Order: sequence, then C-alpha cells, then structure tokens
Amino acid sequence: MENNGLGGKSIILRLEMNTQEIKFGEVASAIFEAGGDMVAIDVIQASGHITVRDITITVTDSVDIGKITNTVKHLKGVRLVNVSDRTFLLHLGGKIETQPKIPIQNRDDLSRVYTPDVARVCSAIQEDPKKAYTLTIKRNTVAVISDGSAVLGLGNIGPYAAMPVMEGKSMLFKQLAGVDSFPICLDTQDTEEIIACIKAIAPGFGGINLEDISSPRCFEIEQRLRDELDIPVFHDDQHGTAVVLYAALINALKIVGKSIDNVRVVVCGIGAAGVACSKILLSAGVKDIIGVDREGALVAGKEYSNSMWQWYAEHTNPNKVEGSLREVIQGADVFIGLSAGGLLRREDVQAMADQPIVFAMANPTPEIRPEEVEDIVGVIATGRSDYPNQINNVLCFPGIFRAALDCRATTINEEMKLAAAEAIASAVSDEERNPSYIIPSVFNQNVVKAIRELVVKAAVKTGVARRIPRE
Amino acid sequence: MENNGLGGKSIILRLEMNTQEIKFGEVASAIFEAGGDMVAIDVIQASGHITVRDITITVTDSVDIGKITNTVKHLKGVRLVNVSDRTFLLHLGGKIETQPKIPIQNRDDLSRVYTPDVARVCSAIQEDPKKAYTLTIKRNTVAVISDGSAVLGLGNIGPYAAMPVMEGKSMLFKQLAGVDSFPICLDTQDTEEIIACIKAIAPGFGGINLEDISSPRCFEIEQRLRDELDIPVFHDDQHGTAVVLYAALINALKIVGKSIDNVRVVVCGIGAAGVACSKILLSAGVKDIIGVDREGALVAGKEYSNSMWQWYAEHTNPNKVEGSLREVIQGADVFIGLSAGGLLRREDVQAMADQPIVFAMANPTPEIRPEEVEDIVGVIATGRSDYPNQINNVLCFPGIFRAALDCRATTINEEMKLAAAEAIASAVSDEERNPSYIIPSVFNQNVVKAIRELVVKAAVKTGVARRIPRE
Repeated sequence: MENNGLGGKSIILRLEMNTQEIKFGEVASAIFEAGGDMVAIDVIQASGHITVRDITITVTDSVDIGKITNTVKHLKGVRLVNVSDRTFLLHLGGKIETQPKIPIQNRDDLSRVYTPDVARVCSAIQEDPKKAYTLTIKRNTVAVISDGSAVLGLGNIGPYAAMPVMEGKSMLFKQLAGVDSFPICLDTQDTEEIIACIKAIAPGFGGINLEDISSPRCFEIEQRLRDELDIPVFHDDQHGTAVVLYAALINALKIVGKSIDNVRVVVCGIGAAGVACSKILLSAGVKDIIGVDREGALVAGKEYSNSMWQWYAEHTNPNKVEGSLREVIQGADVFIGLSAGGLLRREDVQAMADQPIVFAMANPTPEIRPEEVEDIVGVIATGRSDYPNQINNVLCFPGIFRAALDCRATTINEEMKLAAAEAIASAVSDEERNPSYIIPSVFNQNVVKAIRELVVKAAVKTGVARRIPRE
Repeated sequence: MENNGLGGKSIILRLEMNTQEIKFGEVASAIFEAGGDMVAIDVIQASGHITVRDITITVTDSVDIGKITNTVKHLKGVRLVNVSDRTFLLHLGGKIETQPKIPIQNRDDLSRVYTPDVARVCSAIQEDPKKAYTLTIKRNTVAVISDGSAVLGLGNIGPYAAMPVMEGKSMLFKQLAGVDSFPICLDTQDTEEIIACIKAIAPGFGGINLEDISSPRCFEIEQRLRDELDIPVFHDDQHGTAVVLYAALINALKIVGKSIDNVRVVVCGIGAAGVACSKILLSAGVKDIIGVDREGALVAGKEYSNSMWQWYAEHTNPNKVEGSLREVIQGADVFIGLSAGGLLRREDVQAMADQPIVFAMANPTPEIRPEEVEDIVGVIATGRSDYPNQINNVLCFPGIFRAALDCRATTINEEMKLAAAEAIASAVSDEERNPSYIIPSVFNQNVVKAIRELVVKAAVKTGVARRIPRE
C-alpha cells in the first residue's frame, strides 16, 4: 500500500447490525480504537432491528486494516458483509469512456455521420490529407502509449496491469486541458515492434504521449518515432519530469539569488529522467553539470557499458571531476536526485555551497527527507504530494499537448519544453514565491493557459507550427 | 455526391442582405426556382438595413448547387458570405470524444485515480490478469480498426480518409448499445504488420471490430487474429452483412412459405461479403447454394486463381451446375446480390421459382431496382435506405458486441451469429411482417436487447462465455 499524501487510503465496510444487540456508537468507538478514522456513513437498509450501513474509513499507512476488520467481526450483533476499497470502486469498469459529440437521433443524422454521406467527407480527406485535422478527431486526440515495462515504481508489470495508469493519464488530459486521449497498452516489449505499431496507429492521432517505457529502449523508440512521424512524440517520464524540474529550478534560483549560468549541478541517477533533466538544463544555460550513478561521477574518457552514460560523460562535467556522490557534491549549488531513497545525507547537504537547492525526487522515499535538512537548505523539493514543492509531471503534459495540438505542431522541440517550464514557473507570482512554494498546484487553472501561450509562440518561432491558433 | 435516401444533402448559405434593396421573399423564391428546398432560416445578425441569415437548403442529387449559389450571387442587394455543408459541419473536429467517468476535483481524487494509489490497482491486475475486465475499460471497449483499403464504395482511400467512417461506427456502438469504442486507422496494408499491430494493442480492448479491409487479405487477418487473440475479432463487412442478410431471409421465407432446407440460392459476387453470407446460410441449413462471379457459376473441379473461389467451389454447388448468372438463376428461390448495379434483369427474375426472393444489395445501385420487379417478386430487399427492407450492418454489430462483452466471450462463433440473426428477425412480429417489412429499423430499440439475450445464450451454450451476465 502506498501513501497518498493525505492520510492514506479509504476502505468501506458494509456492516449488518442488530440494534437490539449493539448500538452504533459502540461500533464507531471500536473502529476508532483499532486505528480507523470514520469519515462517512451511508444507511443502506433499515428494517426492524436490522440495519445495514456502509462505513467509510480513512486509514494511514501505519494502520493495519486487518485489525479494524477483525475488531468489527468480533463485535456481538455485527456482521461484516464486505470490505470495499474506495480506490478499487473508482476503477470498476475503467475510468474513461467514449462519447458521440452529437446524438444520432434519426435516419437523417445517420446518413450524415455514417453512410452514405460520410463518403463525401472521406473523399475530401483523400484529396487533401491535411483536412484530417479539421474533419476527424486527429485535431484534439493524443494516444497515451505504454508497454508496461517501467510502470511507476512497480517495474515491468506488463500491458494489462499498466492500463489503470494510462487511463488516469487520459482523464487528466481531458480534465485539465480538454485534450481527448486514449490509452493503449502494448503487448510487446520489442523495440522494432513497438515502433512499427505506433507508426501504424498514428493517422488518427494528433500526438503520441509515451509513458512508462524502460530505458534505454525508451530513447531509441522516442527518437525513431520523432524522426519518422509528423506529429509530436513526447516521452513524459523524460521530458515531463525535465520541464517541471526546470520550472522549479527557475523559481528556486530566484529565491536563493543565483543565476543559472553560474550554478554547479549534481544529478544523481542517470536513467531516462536524469538524462532528460540534464539535457533541458544544458539547453537552459547550465554549464557545470556532473552526473553520478553507481560508478560515481561520469567522466569523459572512461569507458561505460551503458551507452547513455557514455553520451552523458562526453557532454557534461567540463572539469572532469571524479569521485563518489559524497565527493562531487561538495560545493555544488544544486542537487537533483532521481535515484533511490536515503542516498543523500545531511552532511552532504552541509558540504554544498551556500543556500543549497535540493531536489530529492526518488519515489516513494526521497534521497533525503525534507525534515532532515529544512534548516540548512535554501529550497527543497520532492516528488511527493505530502511535502511542499512537488515536482509532478501532471503540471506539464496536458498544457504542452494542448499547445502542440492547437498549433498542429510537427514536434515538441527543446524550445517548446523550455517555454513550458517558463510558463509553469510564471504561474507562481513574485509575491507568492517562497521556499515552500516554488511550483504551482496541479489544480492551478492558470498553468495550462500559460503553457499554451508560450509553447505556441515557441512552436511558431521555431517553424514547427502548421497553424497559428486564434486568441 | 451520394444520395442519402432522404432527399439528398443539406447546404447552408450565409447571406448578407440589404433590406432596402431586396425583400427576403424574393430571395426565397429565387432559391426555390433554382431547385432548392429551404428547410431552416437562422437570423445571425440584424442591424439597420443589413441582415445576415443562414439559410439551410436541402437539395436532391439532380440539383446543381452551383446553380443555386449563382442565382443568389446575382441578386441585387444580396452578398453570399459563404456556403457550408451540413455534413461537413457535423464532422468538424471529429465525431467522438473521450471523457473521464468521474471528475478529478481535488488531490484526494487525483491520488486515487492516478499516482500513488493507482499502483495498488495495477498490482491487483498483475497478480490476476482477469481483473483487467473489472478494473479497466477492457470490459466495455471495442477497437474499430481499418487499414483504409476498401472503404464503402470508395476503394483504397488510406487510413486518414477512412477515419470518418470508423468514427461514425464508434458513435453507433455507443449510441445503440452503450459500447465504448475507439477508431484506429492503420498506416500499413501489409497483412503481417496489421496482425502484429492489432495483437500488440489488444490488451486494453474487449473486442476487435475489423472494418473495410480488402479481400482476400481480410480473411487471413481475421482468421489469424481469431486464432491468436482471446477476445472476439469480427470483420463486420463479412459477418455483419451475413447476419443481417440471414435475418432478412428468415422473415422472407416465412412470407413466401418456403423452408430454408429446400431453397436453391444463387449468390452473385463472391467477395468477402458473398463468402460470409454463403457460410452463414450453409450453417443455417441451406443445401443448394450456387456462387456466381465473373467466370460464371463456381464449380468444384475447376481451377481458380482466386483461392477464395477455389474454396467456394469445393463447398457449394452440390449439383455442379455450370453456366452464367442468366443460366443458373433459372428456377432459383433466392437471389443474393453483392456485386454491381444492374446485373439482374426482369427476365432473370421471371425465370426464378415461384415467389422469388431477391436481395439486391449492390451499393449505391442495386443489381435490380425494386420498381422494375415489385409485381413479380415474393420479397425484395436492397442495401439502400430509400427502399423498404434495407439490409444494414448497423442492425448487427452493436448488439453482437454488447453480448460478447457482457459474457466476456473469447470469440464470436457461428452459433452466436445465427442467434443474432434470429434475434434481429424476431424484432419483426408475426403481425407486423409483410413483404415490405422483413427487417427492423436500425432505430428499433428492441433489436440490441433481443440480440444480447440470444447471443449470450449461444455463447454460454457453446462454452465461449467467461462470465454469465445478470438479467
């Protein structure tokens, strides 16, 4: 069970109670004593002495649900009918649906949206394929695609088990940015098969959001699709993280009064996200980045078995600093962790430059917990929702695809990503900005608008927009 | 421009009129005289002497739209602002959308439908993949897939131009049977690539509806997918047509008082649909079927270049009748045409057995027009909506997939197709049945219910249901 950052999860107990044998107050206090926080009661049935109620209970990670249900089972006059889990109830039958935009009420409607009159629309697209953007769902639809090989912290769980994440993503696309999207989980983990399949299904989509594909395959898959398709392809685990991280860094640097050109950055964990974060920082003007992984600092001239590390070593660490994280962190201005829980110690942070910026984004346990260093850092951010400053991809992907679709971008390039980060950073005003608030909430309604405006501009400026949207 | 069976198509003229120079009545009568039937007027703007109105005009096939717009352009005091086409307006931005089933209103919702709590749902599916049916959209979702190689009567128009048809199909799935479905048009016409791609994207779907794939590739693609996937795969052009045809034949035979075991059937046009129609009739008990194509009657023992014809010759025509359509039609009880307009003559129908049944389903022009033979046939049906007895696939696919999803069928087998046909036939009661009414309307709300009931029964009986639905 994972922590949801807000007091854990909910379960619903359906209890049948004999009111002659027990009063509800006794049940309530027994649940409370077993560690459950009762948040809702729904009376399902009440007849004579028998009453059936659904009791919603919120429990924290540390609470044993078995203890609560056992307690209830042993109360005289109470029968535990069943235990449901609110999260599971929300997932019954899946989380998204498809809807006709217009009803088909009679034969006249039918003959327009389907045969025979639809043939004229088909012919119009055949004559001018660009019309696919005006006359089909391509205009507003993104595919959310995973092969289930690196899902959340769960690893290679396969396409069936990955679906709930992709459905959740589709919900967020629509809810936050009005983008229609459809989740597709692939029953293959072969790079060439994935590329061929995504190319094949692309015609109906205006963009491809790749998700939870393990590295290093994710690099080749993304690069090949970017080269071979004329619609944006965006691996969110890489670029979504990078954009939001850079947005947070823009505001964190303002707080500590340092300039992006002069900071020394240590990136710990050189996987897909670590590489993407480093690349966006290089684009943004950071000159001194040192990547650290299991073999210590990556340095040009060494031989690495991992081709990604090889590339990394050749493009970063200009001073060829060698050593362990412990060594290279000394004097660094910024720590970016995409590695594993507990890797950073308080002493390491103490050894950093004045007003250190610590982005400890390992999930679920950060490289260092904020409470351990809050007195000595300039700014600290994590990937968790139960601390301030959550670096959350949800801030980026809805808006950046909204922009890409609206200007019919052929790609999402580096300039558009930088623009998205600046837009996200700008959603926190100068007055609001403080060490606990460098990044807006995912429910901040200005974020998507701000991203759309700046990203469309960047797309037009760099010549990848096929249309200049109104407004 | 195709005929929609109901007085043609609609256009909308936006006119700016100077009321000092012309009265609206003059405009209206000019449009009428040019052949336009004005069906709606919307005032868009009215200020001083200037009024802007949208005039919706229905025109038949024979009317020249250019004549109407020219007439309007030359009226003094009228400016033609633009001409829109209602069918095209309905297609702007596509015809379907995706929607979250539940809103994400706050962080608590977000943490349940997305990270971190969604991870528990993923894990549950990983432990028991069958849970994909309860916890993801698989339960109610069908992919509508085409490669754009044989779309309507338009032929090989490719994946972009095919999208409007697939979107229309998705609308019908939802509207008529509550089935969520998503249109996917493939940018490949290679059999192996199509098979690999559909297998790859299958995990999120409860069924695959193949559509508008040219023969003979459609046979191999369908068969291979049926063998290699554990969800129903249904090529609608074949089986949808076959089911509805057999439904119509059940009722037609009741009208002419003949039994299916004894009739002689001539099928003209041995493509994908012709083969499927013949197969369902063989399953239903027809013994004497003769297939006719460009080389005349298909007879066992001859060599055909087309492997489908070879199969056909070996499995039909028990009396090895040879000859042209003209020759083999003599004495036949039933003519089934899936060929080309005008192939059947009145003399041919006269040469058939008493009370002949003629299903002239070529589109848009039937093998023979009903008005040419209505005095000498027992029953006549076509594929068109502007004659009685339209053989329309829309009667079959929503209901048969509703049933397959509800019982989590592994396949749609022959018994289920026969059951669907019987259900469709039963939606026309004994009292209602007459030579002009052998098949229900696509808007008859009893059809899906009737199909669901009988098809689920057939699935359970034949052991392909993985669940017995309630009700």
